[in-house]
Order: sequence, then structure tokens, then C-alpha cells
Amino acid sequence: MNEKIRLLRERLRKLKMDGMIITNPLSIKYLTNIENEGTLLITRKENIFLTYTMFLETVKSTLTINDEIIVADFRDVSKEDFENFFLFCENVGFEENYVTYKQYHYLKQKYRTNNLAETDNIVEKIREVKDLAEIEKIKKACEITDNCFEHLLEFIKIGTTEKEIALEIEMFFKKNGAERLAFDTVVAVGENSANPHWVPTDRAVKMADPILIDMGCVYQGYCSDMTRTIFMGCILEEIKPIYDLVLKNQLLTNNEIKEYASIKTISKMVESDFKLKNYDLIHSLGHGIGMETHETPYINSKNDTFLKENMVITNEPGIYLPGKYGVRIEDTILVNKGSCTILTKSPKNYIIV
Amino acid sequence: MNEKIRLLRERLRKLKMDGMIITNPLSIKYLTNIENEGTLLITRKENIFLTYTMFLETVKSTLTINDEIIVADFRDVSKEDFENFFLFCENVGFEENYVTYKQYHYLKQKYRTNNLAETDNIVEKIREVKDLAEIEKIKKACEITDNCFEHLLEFIKIGTTEKEIALEIEMFFKKNGAERLAFDTVVAVGENSANPHWVPTDRAVKMADPILIDMGCVYQGYCSDMTRTIFMGCILEEIKPIYDLVLKNQLLTNNEIKEYASIKTISKMVESDFKLKNYDLIHSLGHGIGMETHETPYINSKNDTFLKENMVITNEPGIYLPGKYGVRIEDTILVNKGSCTILTKSPKNYIIV
Repeated sequence: MNEKIRLLRERLRKLKMDGMIITNPLSIKYLTNIENEGTLLITRKENIFLTYTMFLETVKSTLTINDEIIVADFRDVSKEDFENFFLFCENVGFEENYVTYKQYHYLKQKYRTNNLAETDNIVEKIREVKDLAEIEKIKKACEITDNCFEHLLEFIKIGTTEKEIALEIEMFFKKNGAERLAFDTVVAVGENSANPHWVPTDRAVKMADPILIDMGCVYQGYCSDMTRTIFMGCILEEIKPIYDLVLKNQLLTNNEIKEYASIKTISKMVESDFKLKNYDLIHSLGHGIGMETHETPYINSKNDTFLKENMVITNEPGIYLPGKYGVRIEDTILVNKGSCTILTKSPKNYIIV
Repeated sequence: MNEKIRLLRERLRKLKMDGMIITNPLSIKYLTNIENEGTLLITRKENIFLTYTMFLETVKSTLTINDEIIVADFRDVSKEDFENFFLFCENVGFEENYVTYKQYHYLKQKYRTNNLAETDNIVEKIREVKDLAEIEKIKKACEITDNCFEHLLEFIKIGTTEKEIALEIEMFFKKNGAERLAFDTVVAVGENSANPHWVPTDRAVKMADPILIDMGCVYQGYCSDMTRTIFMGCILEEIKPIYDLVLKNQLLTNNEIKEYASIKTISKMVESDFKLKNYDLIHSLGHGIGMETHETPYINSKNDTFLKENMVITNEPGIYLPGKYGVRIEDTILVNKGSCTILTKSPKNYIIV
């Protein structure tokens, strides 16, 4: 059986669940590679994917014998079949954070399950630890992102607008193998960089402006995420201590990222160091990244869990002075046994374009 | 009070509901113009928007006095406040097709409502009929789409790939005032046009290829949607009768689109005419369009409702011959009292590039 489904079954057994109804397309893609609409049933003995007539051929050609997944057409499944899938099952899991209230009642009625049970992001948690094929795709997404950054250093001139930079990033990604943006690109120039989130405007780059760029792409379904804050022409002296403080904490955090590291301890370390200089870390220090840009684990001081080998996370401390400017530096990072691998490799020293 | 919320309150009264908890960002944007995260509460006497500290200023600057919406910081709302919002309310509506199973239980516990009641897409149904400001935005999105089509007629050459055409469309949209694609562009060349949905590939345009392009953009939050099937160099004689049949039905449908027209009757008309020549209409004839590309009402023969003045819908008959080619012609259309206005104005005769 395919390894991911095998692991899911193991976790379901621990939760004393006899099966699961999976409807979130991301979970289905992760577990089966299938990208077509349908429902994945993990029953006592079988894995079944129900789909629509028009998708049957594509679905069958996606699967291998090794997947051990039976494909069926919704049209051929009778009312009784639906009721028999989980016959005598005490607890059948479902995705309570994806399924709407309306869909829940539909599933309950359709499958006549005794107890549709919450699974607490069971698939999302399995997704936290990446396999080698996933890591390769994330590496490639990071490489495209690094190349894009190098290109931007040539592209950005005095007078270039936030919107123009954002569009250039998107075009670069798409012309260089990425299928799409991982998220809406942040290009925040001058005073706009004081906003952690920012939608690009017609604001043009002027002399001495900081330029905060937060960008990422999707390569074969996997995301990258990188932020750099660069400068036009020169760096205002007053920004340097802030840049240095952010960079120092970003590097210190990278040193701490390894298997078994406490997410809370790492986050508190940065919070405390910022506090010493009277700054606050106003957003999470980072997040898991993979099929989605933002996944569990969230890297903040409320998270009591520990890093695991082959998790991929971001490390993105930032300081924002409203009305003035902001600095954020972010990498996508692979957690290893005794250390970590920084997957986004663009330079982090002062960069003046 | 703002007109949209006034209408919502009227509909809630008809459903015997004393209030509503609104969490879908699209509903909130529609009712208030607010684009920041938060929850909109329609209580007996007040409209309240709860949001986070960092969004307070933006939210307040979005609203006008006329909106009659009280803005509050989640941080300042006590446990008791939450329980008092709907005190003595019998039925409080929620969005059962948006709220997850998990969120439902959270809302129920947080607001201590007697009965959280399903509202059957109440906001989505109000959104079906557009006001003048919305229509103007859709018109502008359609105009950008028409201009893009004109540009493509120059851009597409023998050897241009599906991906290149799709990227050119996206760049054109973004350089000409649109904020984003309304949906993933379909560019399907040659035999690929036989798939109603298609993700652009490296397939290059060859002599005599049909080229099916389904594209749309978002202008100030409102969508356009248009499909044209054009030809490289010449039109295969065998495609002409199919193109003619699709176009004939698209034009006939346009003639029928007006206030009070039966959606079922219109759809059945096309289905029957296709049937006479042994073709099937394998997808819906169209759909509502506005803030989302696909909205209610869905235009198909299962829909028992009638068109209303100022609905905006698409009309997109298509015929697909697997392994060979397909033809679809689609416009975005405004429903008027005795007729309709075609908002996408690109030519529909045989177009050879």
C-alpha cells in the first residue's frame, strides 16, 4: 500500500477509528496524487476513490497498483453501497476543519455512520514531515525564487513601482518553471514596508527607500517563501541597527533549528531579544511550508511542540515602525538531525540596488 | 443604514431570524466593503464588526456614517459581551455552506445562541441582483477582456504555445487595470480543445488548429468571463457545422435572456437543439457572475427559477468531440427588463489568425 495511506491508517488505529471520509482536495492529492474531484474512503479493508465519469480515466492513469486504491464512479454507487462502506464501524473520521456544517450533515446521512468523529488535522500533521520527493520540489521552488531575486537586483530602478516589481516577479516565476505564485507577492517600498502585509500599489521607488519583497512560487505543487529587505542607492543610518537586529535574530534562529528543538523556546528567544531594544515581534516567527505556503507547525511562542527531521519551515523575524519603514528577512528551511539546511540562498547582507 | 444590510435584515425577518453571524469574507466585503479579517454581527438593533487591533484603522476608514456599523476590537469584547449579543434571540442565522463543522461548534459555544439556524445562502442570493456600481465594475472587467482578445489576435502565431498565450493574457490584464485573473485561463489548442476544462501546456499552435480561449479578469473586485474559439490559418470544413450550431444557440439564448425568463426553458432549448444533431450539452449553459466567477444562479435545466433584472450571467454553449476538437462561445451578459446587454463585445464570427 502507498506509504502515506499506510501511515494514515496507523494513526487512525491509534485514534480508535475504523475508517475515514476524506474530501479536502489537498489531502486527497497528498495521499494519492489525484487532482480530480472526488471522495477518498479509508474503509476497514479497502481504500476507495469515488469520482465522476469524466474524471475516471485521468484518475486511473494517476494511480499505480502499489497505491491499492479502488476507483469507482459515483454513478455506480447505490444508496446501499454508501451505507455499507462503514457498516459496523464505530468511529469514522472526517475533516472537521474542512467540511462545512452543511456537508457534515450530508455525509452523516449518506454514509449512515454511527459516529462521524473529529480527526484533529490528522492528514495535515502527517504532511508536516516531508519525504525526499517533496523536499526536492521545495528545493527547486526555492532555487527559482533565488534566481528571481538575482534578476530583481538588475530590474529595480528609481521610478519602478511596487506593482511593476510584483508583476515582474510573477512573470519570472512563470517563465522559469513555476506553475504559480505561492501567495500574493508583497512588494512594500519606503513607508509601506512598515506593514507586515501589503498589497502592491503604484508607489515608485525613490532614493534611499527600503524595499521589502516577500515572494514565493509553486513548483510541482510545492511552495517556497522568502523575504529580503533591500535599499535604493543608500541605507539610511537609522535603519541599520534595526536591520542588524533582525538579521542577528534570523541567523541565531537558524542556528537553533534542528530536530527536537522546542518551537516555543526558539520563538521566545527572538521575542526577548527584540524586547531588550523595545521592539515587538508582532507576527509569528515562521510557519510550516509545503503543499501550502502556510501549514502547521506554526512557529510561535504558543506552540508547545518540537521540530522533527524533514519538517520544512520558514524563519522570518521582522520589525515594523509605523509610518516609517520595516525590515523582514525570511528563509525557507529544512530541519535536519543536528542542524538545518537553508533552502533559500539569496544574500542577506546589506544590499543596495 | 447601508442598503445591502437593510435588504439582508428584511430577508432575515422573513425567515423569522433575530440576527446573523457572518464570517465569509466575501459576504462581509459585499455588505460593508471591509476587506479585513473579522466577524460581522447583525444583532436585533445594531450592526457590529469585530476585528483585530491591527485592522481597526483600515476598517474605520472603509466605513461611512451611513453604513451604521459599530467597529470593535476582539480584544475588548468580554465573554459576557459575546453572550449578550444575541440575548433572548430565538433564531440566529449563520452561513452553513461556509462555516466548517468545527467553527460551527465554536460559534455556538462563544455566542451561546439558542439556535444557530441555516440561512440557505441568504447573502449569495442577495448578491445575484447587481446594483449600478457593481454593473459598472463588471462592464469595465469585460472591456479589459475584449481589449485583451483584440491583442491576442495579433499575438498568436504558428508556434505560440498554450502556456505562452495564457501568460500573455495574464500580463495584459495586469498591465491594463485588472487586479488578477478571474479564474485559471483555459487555452486549449487543437485536440486539447475537446476538453471543456484544460490546463495550458507546451502544445504549440499549428496550421488549421482551433484555439479555444476562456478568460476573465477581476476589476475592482468584479469578474468577467468570455470564451472564443478561433482558428490558425484556416478552418477545417468539418468544424464549420459545429461552430455554426454552437453560435446559433448562443445567439438564440441571448435573444431569450430577459427579466422573468425561465432558466430551465432556456437551457432545455439548447439541449434539444444540440440533441437534434446528436450532440450533448455536457456542462451548464452558464452561471451567475459578479464578485465570484461562478455564482448562483446556475443556468441549467435543473434550475426552476427565473431571471431577474440586473442579474449578470454567462451564456456559454459548447460542443466537444473527444480526441478531435471542441467549440465554445461565451459572453458575460446583463439581464434587462425586456432584453439583455451583452457586456463582452468581441466578435463571434469565424476568426482566422
